[in-house]
This record gives sequence, structure tokens and C-alpha cells, in this order.
Amino acid sequence: MDTTQPLRVGFLGYRFMGAAHANALARLPMFFPDVPAVERSVLVGRDEPALAAAADRLGFGHTSTEWRDALDDVDVFYVLGPNHLHAEPAIAALEAGVPVLCEKPLGRTLTEAERMAAAAAEATVPAACGFNYRFVPAIQHAKRLVDAGELGEIRHVRARYLQDWLVDPDAPWSWRCDADRAGSGALGDLGAHSIDLVRYLVGDRVGGIAQLSGQLRTFVDDRPAREGDERRPVTVDDAYSAQVTFDGGALGTFEASRAATGHTNDHTVEIDGSDGSVRFSLERLNELEVLTGDGRGYETVLVTDDTDPYGDHWWPPGHVLGWEHPVVHENAAFLAAVGGAEPAAAAPSALPDFEDGLATQRVLDAIERSDERGERVTV
Amino acid sequence: MDTTQPLRVGFLGYRFMGAAHANALARLPMFFPDVPAVERSVLVGRDEPALAAAADRLGFGHTSTEWRDALDDVDVFYVLGPNHLHAEPAIAALEAGVPVLCEKPLGRTLTEAERMAAAAAEATVPAACGFNYRFVPAIQHAKRLVDAGELGEIRHVRARYLQDWLVDPDAPWSWRCDADRAGSGALGDLGAHSIDLVRYLVGDRVGGIAQLSGQLRTFVDDRPAREGDERRPVTVDDAYSAQVTFDGGALGTFEASRAATGHTNDHTVEIDGSDGSVRFSLERLNELEVLTGDGRGYETVLVTDDTDPYGDHWWPPGHVLGWEHPVVHENAAFLAAVGGAEPAAAAPSALPDFEDGLATQRVLDAIERSDERGERVTV
Amino acid sequence: MDTTQPLRVGFLGYRFMGAAHANALARLPMFFPDVPAVERSVLVGRDEPALAAAADRLGFGHTSTEWRDALDDVDVFYVLGPNHLHAEPAIAALEAGVPVLCEKPLGRTLTEAERMAAAAAEATVPAACGFNYRFVPAIQHAKRLVDAGELGEIRHVRARYLQDWLVDPDAPWSWRCDADRAGSGALGDLGAHSIDLVRYLVGDRVGGIAQLSGQLRTFVDDRPAREGDERRPVTVDDAYSAQVTFDGGALGTFEASRAATGHTNDHTVEIDGSDGSVRFSLERLNELEVLTGDGRGYETVLVTDDTDPYGDHWWPPGHVLGWEHPVVHENAAFLAAVGGAEPAAAAPSALPDFEDGLATQRVLDAIERSDERGERVTV
Amino acid sequence: MDTTQPLRVGFLGYRFMGAAHANALARLPMFFPDVPAVERSVLVGRDEPALAAAADRLGFGHTSTEWRDALDDVDVFYVLGPNHLHAEPAIAALEAGVPVLCEKPLGRTLTEAERMAAAAAEATVPAACGFNYRFVPAIQHAKRLVDAGELGEIRHVRARYLQDWLVDPDAPWSWRCDADRAGSGALGDLGAHSIDLVRYLVGDRVGGIAQLSGQLRTFVDDRPAREGDERRPVTVDDAYSAQVTFDGGALGTFEASRAATGHTNDHTVEIDGSDGSVRFSLERLNELEVLTGDGRGYETVLVTDDTDPYGDHWWPPGHVLGWEHPVVHENAAFLAAVGGAEPAAAAPSALPDFEDGLATQRVLDAIERSDERGERVTV
Repeated sequence: MDTTQPLRVGFLGYRFMGAAHANALARLPMFFPDVPAVERSVLVGRDEPALAAAADRLGFGHTSTEWRDALDDVDVFYVLGPNHLHAEPAIAALEAGVPVLCEKPLGRTLTEAERMAAAAAEATVPAACGFNYRFVPAIQHAKRLVDAGELGEIRHVRARYLQDWLVDPDAPWSWRCDADRAGSGALGDLGAHSIDLVRYLVGDRVGGIAQLSGQLRTFVDDRPAREGDERRPVTVDDAYSAQVTFDGGALGTFEASRAATGHTNDHTVEIDGSDGSVRFSLERLNELEVLTGDGRGYETVLVTDDTDPYGDHWWPPGHVLGWEHPVVHENAAFLAAVGGAEPAAAAPSALPDFEDGLATQRVLDAIERSDERGERVTV
Repeated sequence: MDTTQPLRVGFLGYRFMGAAHANALARLPMFFPDVPAVERSVLVGRDEPALAAAADRLGFGHTSTEWRDALDDVDVFYVLGPNHLHAEPAIAALEAGVPVLCEKPLGRTLTEAERMAAAAAEATVPAACGFNYRFVPAIQHAKRLVDAGELGEIRHVRARYLQDWLVDPDAPWSWRCDADRAGSGALGDLGAHSIDLVRYLVGDRVGGIAQLSGQLRTFVDDRPAREGDERRPVTVDDAYSAQVTFDGGALGTFEASRAATGHTNDHTVEIDGSDGSVRFSLERLNELEVLTGDGRGYETVLVTDDTDPYGDHWWPPGHVLGWEHPVVHENAAFLAAVGGAEPAAAAPSALPDFEDGLATQRVLDAIERSDERGERVTV
Repeated sequence: MDTTQPLRVGFLGYRFMGAAHANALARLPMFFPDVPAVERSVLVGRDEPALAAAADRLGFGHTSTEWRDALDDVDVFYVLGPNHLHAEPAIAALEAGVPVLCEKPLGRTLTEAERMAAAAAEATVPAACGFNYRFVPAIQHAKRLVDAGELGEIRHVRARYLQDWLVDPDAPWSWRCDADRAGSGALGDLGAHSIDLVRYLVGDRVGGIAQLSGQLRTFVDDRPAREGDERRPVTVDDAYSAQVTFDGGALGTFEASRAATGHTNDHTVEIDGSDGSVRFSLERLNELEVLTGDGRGYETVLVTDDTDPYGDHWWPPGHVLGWEHPVVHENAAFLAAVGGAEPAAAAPSALPDFEDGLATQRVLDAIERSDERGERVTV
Repeated sequence: MDTTQPLRVGFLGYRFMGAAHANALARLPMFFPDVPAVERSVLVGRDEPALAAAADRLGFGHTSTEWRDALDDVDVFYVLGPNHLHAEPAIAALEAGVPVLCEKPLGRTLTEAERMAAAAAEATVPAACGFNYRFVPAIQHAKRLVDAGELGEIRHVRARYLQDWLVDPDAPWSWRCDADRAGSGALGDLGAHSIDLVRYLVGDRVGGIAQLSGQLRTFVDDRPAREGDERRPVTVDDAYSAQVTFDGGALGTFEASRAATGHTNDHTVEIDGSDGSVRFSLERLNELEVLTGDGRGYETVLVTDDTDPYGDHWWPPGHVLGWEHPVVHENAAFLAAVGGAEPAAAAPSALPDFEDGLATQRVLDAIERSDERGERVTV
């Protein structure tokens, strides 16, 4: 790859995650100047007026309504659309030798994810899966504590991701309510984050998930279309829970909901070990609650010091970061990998790849199987 | 019953719960003067010197090493010893027409609990089970909100009771580590509280627990005896978790541990409904976090006003209560029932009886069965 | 003093603080058995029916409408009435050789307090002033940290005591609104606590208050009488603030209000030193937030362990105490002093005496002078 | 002004605030597309290698070591250097008809600020002062509540800004420790923010500050130079406090410190009114604690909804913002004013101008005078 020219980047998708990654790319030169330079080159979508407006706003030079065409003209491809548009474009890109960053969940189904991971295994370019929460400084700090053995033997793992935007039965229908396009609901959208984060943080210590009991719930069966009077069926879950057994014996509970009154975007992870514990909530993402050593209670650590993960890239201590900053870190790690290097700031192997996406998908699949069968299943 | 004379009360057990109930009885005249008067009459135990010292301290006039004898001389009997000393004394008391307050879990096994509940059903005197947390003012406030429909349809229930006193592998062995005496570990000791509290708060709304998946864990296999060099086997669980399905469709997760670093006595209950949510933690027992109506976030309500449950019995607003006060409320409710009345301050049917104890024991039993079989079970 | 017989205790006052101390005395035998035994002997008041009812409820054997008479028949005397009934009874008791516990503020004015302290200086019996918050376990824990030098050089002291019961302009008038009876309002009622607590915690380290700027405010000028249609003038402050300079150079800010919406009984003390900091709030009185040594953020310590102050007198760790427990500790310390001993559990010199009451009154007086003159004053 | 071409922007200063504003300008096109377009044109500084590196990183096309020269080639000028480089460049720019955004405190002294405000008064272009915290969404939300009368009559105002970076006596000396360059220490650096924020939020309601008592403290007298073995004198305050009287009778306390152990960047503002209260802390800048109407306790509102201030410009609800986002809002408001419009998203008159900077400087000056004279002063 010619690194004297900016990498030409193509995006498939321009809504929430499209904007998040475009913003991240725009911020790299100022805050991560060592990362390979990129050019927001081509934005892919189907609705031409909306696409043009998005390209203008997000800083893309070109648009295309055919992702296959776009692949010819880019050095890197981001798969950021609805889940039913993950597998084919990602596989095609990898087969074309184009590095890919694909949002989570990797696929709608385990089969899709397996095909994608197989394509990645055969490719010689990076294939990253968008588990952005690995890149939260407080999570990186927690990872350092776990890896240093500060928590001892891990015994309890709790992860839950609670939102409330579908509490209202008249909140509008979207593709995220549709099994064909999304695969699953809260499970794949939110649960995938939790499952990956736990794997990342303590997977080395607690082992894999040996078996689990999973449940899905749909509280509201249909929702109004954004336009017109129609109500459309909700064919995915509003919430899930999973009780899991790790190979190493730790107890785990997982939960997510889009109908949890009182929680806007509360991704909470708690890990209790024989020697220490940590707690994290995304709504206070600059903070990690830590108990180690001779501590008697949780210490609220504001993870914004110069010596904290990514701390020297941003503002002085206490000048807190927002939700989008970990996406910048994620892009820095991905593009560094594309450029052949690991950025100094990232923890070893922080960048999640398609194998990680597949590993999480196996758990999503097991939860769905358990719910369907009404019994515990092995992963 | 002759209510012109104080009720003669007998206690079997004089350690933690013995002291807690003795303290409660001592405080009733000043704060609940309408409750029938009692005399701490006879304290039953086996270790005579310790028993005599306890009787002196706890204000009992007599001691006895034979609970059967004591039953002849009391109007009310409290069963407060280790769990293997619940069933027989409680049943004998009820058969003798003596009202009983028995600590939780009701029995060591479902069979014991069934026998006890059968005895209570045949008796004409009150038989109460010591689920003291029902009597926390913040819990009563939550109950009022649930009953008034302020939370709407209940969708998520989470309850966990985390302690850390057995994190240390050299924390000493006690009867609470022994299956013969305790039945189970964290499950019966802590989980019983959670299960009852959820039943009490939302049982009418979510229905019973249709089925569940349960897990038990023992992290430390033996512990040093309090005296000597011996290590004794731990034959109960250090922790459990349960994923439950309520008849009405709500999702529930339960967990308890005696090995959760960072949590001293953290009994947390969270209920999310379609219209509102509440959160409670025992470590901050004067507070209830409430979201109802047009609220956007949790409001931290200090449940100490005159108009709050039990508020007019104690101190001015903001002068907080401690762990022991709900035990006073519990005793007020029990003795009022013994005296034939419901105290005005108590919520309807707050007083848990042996049927409640049995209902919880069915869930404990199902969790144990599920763990043994490695599969989901019906309750 | 004959210690083979219970000490006969007389109380002047039977409302809030009368009940609080009566409760404390009732609880000592069970939880502080080494403290000299007492008999609640005579309750003094003016309204005979109310007095009789209170004596019955609070467990006093006798009543009297003449405090002078009562002094003849008691071994210990508690002065718990409105502030205008502090000086004379306390002085008379001390002159009669009867130990006294007098509620705070010591007097209505500096002159009264000086007379009282002079009487105490000449007496050979203990004269305690009711600064009960010294006896909160978390405060004792903070004191230990300060005394051990864990906070280093003290630089910032903040104390505020916020209540909201007089926010409503139609909250009824009471003696606490009347300068003749109360001396001052929030200043003497709440500020006295803060000033004493800061003196107790860091007085040895920061020195006395060299000078200060004080302000008083009355937000509501008259209030309805409890009975009838009359409105009575409010002649005391609803709130005060003070900016103080300690001899040692630390900066201090004090504030109290009875009209602070959102704060029921929020007595917050914060101390920042060169090596560490502590924070405390009475609404969460079991907790101390601590930062020492290499800590990066505040650690929330639940001060309920066996090895914590008073921890071995009550319940297992995490079974939290309430507002009234420090009053029990206060009574234990006072009665131990009356009996000639310091209770083992108390920190050295925890028991505040009339000199302490006077020292605080000097600050109250200086704040009033500063407010009147509109200028800084020396204490 | 020709708005068909991007506005050419010049910056004097390229360290912390230079980077903060450069970042803000870079983000406007994507998130505030209606704001006039800008070009980062010229960066002014003295150290040529550092300047060149900064210009490269911050995206400026040119550099200059002479701010006077730069003024000829820009449409907008930002004064972001040390405080001794505020007055002259800002005045010169205004005299040249170039809109100015000058960081706070406006000047080192009241005299400087008066000269600057006079220049702004004569100019026909916007002159903004960098009180960025006005633009925090939670602060805007608080402003809406105050303006709607939801808090009633304001009675208590508390503002404090606590940092800890100068706790360590060996933290290096910088211009911020030098009276000649900075004017004052914590007072001007941090206190200026608090004073402006209180003016902004409740100035209309509580009136001006009639008089005050101020104190300054320097805890560490000299500090090591960044290079070499020298220690340099600290000639500014490490901390200040002020007790203020508002014209309308409310009580106010202000405090700031760079030596407050346990507080990294804790700018806390609390306002208690007769009908409601709000609390804010910069370390949790997405949250506003609110009590209004029939509320009993503070409700924690995550101010990230679409309908919240600036909410529709960024991410979905609960995807929190960081410290830098209010600086983006500030730049949007400033550039909209430069372009002749008020951005729809901003509250009326949110943009602080030199009159606001001067009003705050009068208070800073009064605090210094009060400290010097040891007495209360009028502002």
C-alpha cells in the first residue's frame, strides 16, 4: 500500500455509525498524527438525495449507490449499514484485498458470521469488528488491572446494557425492529457489546462460556411506521438475559433491554475477583470504580490523567471525554493496523477482529437457541 | 390470650438474630406503644455460660437448655437458631398453640418447609417468617408505588445480595458453611431475602416464577475451624445465580454471594416497568431511587418524612434509620397480629407467614435442582 | 457517688432531644453494658398532661414541673429544653454537684455561655455539651485519619448543614423561630454542630478561627402559629454563612440553612489536606469518602466493620446504623465520665464539655457581630 | 464581510486553549453546518519550531511571530495566550475592526479589563470572552429552568472549582504561577468561570454582588522551573474563597483551588431556590441534578436528549459529550454572531462579551482588594 498518499476510505452507511466514524476520521490528524492519513473518499447508499447531503456533511468527496463499484476505488472499506448489509460487502471487500471495519454484530446469524470470519481468515488485510467500547480509557484501565492480576481470581461477572428508547409502544418502527434486517434486537445490538467486552476484559482469565441459559422478550408487538398510519410487526427481541457458566468456574449474568425505564445508555460491567473488583458505566464513561489491594470500598477513579490510556492524546486531567472519543481510538487502532503498525497507545490486541466478532456471535446464537428450546445449551 | 399481662416471649437462639429481635422488643414500648406489651421471658440455648451471659445482656428473665420445656411457659416463641433448629421447634410451638416467628430460610429443605407450613395451616395462631426487609420504609414506599400502578407493567426485575465476608479463604468456618445445619449457603441465607422481597413487591403483578435456571458455586472448599488447627469442609454454596421467568412475562435475574469483593451488605433490588422504575440498596437503606410519570432520571428520595411508612414513629425527616429499625417494624407487625390486630403503620399483608416462607423455599429448591441437573426446571 | 445503685437521671425537656436521649439510655444496657447503670427517674416540664404522657412513653418514673425541685432527687441532669432554658438549670445543677449534659448551642448568647462555662470550671462533676455528631463512627474514623497525619497539612475546610423544613412560608412558627427563646436560628441550631465538628476534627491542626466574615438571612418574616389564625414574627435567621481564617492558614467556609430546597438533613463536612481528603454527609452517615496515600479518587468506606469505631458494639459489617446511634455513643461517653472512666470505644477527649460549647459560642457570636456590623471581625 | 468565502481565522496561542478552539473550528462543518465557514489561517507565537509544529497539527496554513502583522490578514482573531497577552492584541484587533474571542480572565487587572471593554464598546464587531461553561448543555438546561421560574426565589448560590495539579510542591512552575503574566492564580483561572456562570444563570434574579469578603492563599511559595535546578517564586494564589451578598438578598459562597486533593476538575455550581434546586459538576458534565415542583429529592437528568440544548447536533440520547463539546458550541455562537446571526440552538444572550468579562473582573478585583485590606469591600 502506498502510504505516501492518504488512504482512500469508503463507507457503506451514513446514519449514526456512519457519522460516528466520519467524525473519528476527521479528528485523527489533530490527535493521532502518527496514524496513516486518510481521505474520506466515497460514501455508499441508496437514497441519492439523502446520500448527497450526508456526503456533504460528513466530508466525502464522492457518492455511490453501488457498493461493489465503490470497492474498486478505495483502500479501506467501512461496513456501517443495517446488519443485513454486513456479510456480502465485507466478504467482497476482503476478497478484493481491501481492509474492512464492520460494525457489530458481525452478521445476522451465526452462519453469516462464520462466512465472514472465513473470508477474513483467508484475507491478508485487517478485518476489524466495531466493538468500540474496548477503547474507552476506563475499560483499558480495567484491562490493565485485570492483566496485572490485581483482581485475583475472577468470580463474578455482570454486564448489562440498558436503554429506554423502545419503552413507548408508539416509538416508531425501524430496521432495528425487523428480524430480516437486524437478525436480533437488543441481543445483537446491545448484548454483542457486553459479550465482547467481557471476553476482552477477562476472557484470558475465566475461559470461554461453556454453557448458558438465554431468554428473549418482545414487550411491544408492533410499532407505527415512521410515515403513514401503518403499524409494522416487531420481529426481534426488546430484551434478553443470559445466565452463563465460564469454563473457569466464574458466574456470569448478562442482560440488555431497549425498554428499561430510567436508563438511557447504561452499559454497566462489573467484575468481582478474589483480590479486587471494578465497576464501569457508560453513562459515566470517564470513571472507573476500583477496589484493589487493601482498599475497603470502591475508589472512583477519573481516568483522564496523562498516564492513563489515551490520556496524553487529549486534554488536561479532568477534562472529560465523550462517547465519540473511543470511536476515534478504535479508528486509530484500525488504521494503524491497516498501515502495518500497532499504535503505541493501544493495549496489546485491543483491536477486535472478525474472529472476535464470530466468537461473540456464537454466544448470541446460543442465547437464541436456548430461548427457542427453553433449555440450557452449550455454546 | 390475656392481654392485660405482657406476653411472655421465648427465644431459641441468642446470637445475631437473637440480639436483633431482643433489641426490637426492647424498643417497642417507646416507639410502637400500641403493640401488645411483652416480657423477654426465657432464652433457650445449649451452652449454659454463654446462655446466661446472653440472657443478662438481652434482658431475659430465665434461661433454658430445653426448648420443649420452654414452650410451656411462653405466649410467643421466636425460632432464631441455626437452620437445622427451625422445623421441630416451630412445629411443636404451633402444635402447642404458641405463635411463632421463625427466621429465614424457613427450613433447610423443601420438605422441612412443607411440614412447617402444614403445621401453620392447621394452627390458629400466627406463624411469621423473618423476612425483615419487607419492613424497610423505602421498600414499603416502593410497594405503594407498585400497587398504585405507578410503574406500569413490570418488565425487568433484578435482585442481588452481595457480601464479602467469605472472600478470604481463611475466614473461619461456621455452621453457615455446613449443609447439614444450614441447608444451603448464600442461596438460603441471602437469596431467600431477595426472592421474598421480589414476591412481596411485584408478585401480584408479575405472577409466580414459572421456571428458572439456577447455579451454585463454592469458591473455597474448606475453612479453618474457629479453634484448633483443623480445616473443615464447606458443603454449601458461596454464591448462586438464577435466571427466572415470571408467569406474566417479566425477565428476572437473581444473584447472591458471600465472596463479592467490594460489597459488604449490598442487597439491591431494581424494578423496571413500562411507566416507571425503582432501585434500592440496603447499604443506603433510607433512600429509594424513583422514576415515575414525566421524570427523566432517577430521583433520590430520602424516605424519612412523617408521611412515609413508619416515619411518624421515629425522628424528624432526614434523621436516618439503621438496619435494625425494620426489625422493630417486623416485630410490631408480628405482635400486633399475635394480639389480633394489624398495626396501622404496616402495609396490608406485609407480615410474611409460613406460606410465604414455603413459597420462597420452593424457589430455593428449584435453584438447587437446576444446578444439580444442569438444566432449567419448573418451580 | 454510689455506683452500686443505678444513677437517677432527670431530664428537662421531652420533645425531640428528650426522646433521643431517653432512647439512648434505654439502649445502653444491651449494647454498652460497661457503662454505669441508670434509672430514668424524673422528667421535668410544664404542660402536665403532655408531660405525663411523655414520661410514660419515655420510661420515666416521675414527673415534675419544677426543675429546681428535681435537682434534689437526681444523680445526673440533662438539659434538653429550648435554649432559653439552658443556662439557669445547667448552672444550678453544677452548683449542686450534679453532672450535666446540656444540648447545643450552650446558651442563647455568649454571655450565657460564659456563665455556664464558668460554673462548669468550678464544678467537680462532668458538664457535657450535646455535640452528638462527634460520635458518628465515620467522623471518628475521619478523626483517626487526621490525627495520624494521613491528610497532611490541612488547607481547605468546608462545612454546611442544609435542611428544608422552613422553605415553605406557611411552615408553622415554633420557639426555634424566636430570638428570645432560641438566641439564633440556623446559626445556633445547625451551625453550632458544624463549628464544633470542625474544631474537633482539625482544631489541633489548623488552630483557632482568627477572624471571620459572617452573614445571616431571614427569608420568611412571619409564620403561622400552630393554633389560631395569628402569624408570629420570625426573629432569627433562616440561614447563615461564614468565611473564616484559621490561625494556621487554612481556608474555611461554613453555611447552614433551614430553607435549602433538596436537603433534608444534609450535614456535610469536607477536609482537603496536602496528602489526603475526606468527605462526610449525615444523610449517608455510615459512609466516609476517603482519599489518602496513592489513591486517585475518593474511596467510599462503609464504616461498619468490627474494627471501626463502635463497630464491635452493634451489628455485623454492613448492617448500617442510624441517626440515633451516635446519641447512644454520646451517652455512653458521658455516663462513663460521670462514673469516672473513659469508655474504651471512644476516641480520646471525644466528649465535648462546656469549654467546647463556649468555644463554639464565641464563633456564633462573632458571626452575629460580623453580620450586624457588616464587616469582618476577630473571634 | 464577504460570507461567500470562509472566514480567515487567526489564533494567538497554541497550547491548551489554542488546541481546544482549533478542534472546535474543525468540528463545526460536520455538526453546525449553518455556522459561517472558517479557514484556520494564521497561528501566532514566538517559538518558531514549536509554532510550526502546532500549526501543522492544528491545521493552520500560516504562522507568524508578530500578532500585529497577523491582524492584517484575518477576518476573526482569537486571543488565547497567557493573560499578559490579552489586552493589547484584543484592543488592537477591535480597533482594526476584527472580531475577537479572548480567553478569560479578560485582563490581568481591572484596569486592563476596563480598557478592553471600552475598546469593545467602541467597536462594531463582536468581542467575546471565553466563558465556555455557559455552553454546557446541562448548564443551558439549568438556565431554562431558572428563567422559567422553576426554582422560585433564589436563596443560596454555591460555586467552587477545585483542581489538584498544584498539590505537589514539586509540580513545575509555569506562567500561571506568575503575577506578572497571569494577574492572579486560581482566582482568575478558575474563579472567573464560577463568577461568570453564576451571573449567567441567576444574575437576572439575584442582582449583582453588592459586597463581598475575599481571601487568597498561596500554599507553596516556590516551584521548580521546568528546566534546570532553579526554583521560581509563586506570586499568585493557589486558592481563594469569597463570601458574597447579592443585591436581591441571596447568600453566595465561592471557592477555587489548584491544591484541593481529590478533585481533578470539579467545577460545581449549586442553586437553591424557594421552589426548586439544581446542582452541576463539571466532572459529570452530562448530568444535571434537578429538584422542581413536587419532587422530593434530586433527579439525575442526563441532558442528552434530542430536545435538550444542542442535543440534536450530536449523538443519540445517552451518548455523552465531553469537555470539548461546549467549546464547539461556544465557537458556533461566536461565529454566528460574527456572521450576523444568533444560532438557533443557543439560549438568548448566551454568548459572553467583553462587558461580561469586565463584570467578572470587577468581582475578581474586589476579592483581591478584600484580601489585601482584610475587610469586606463593595464591588
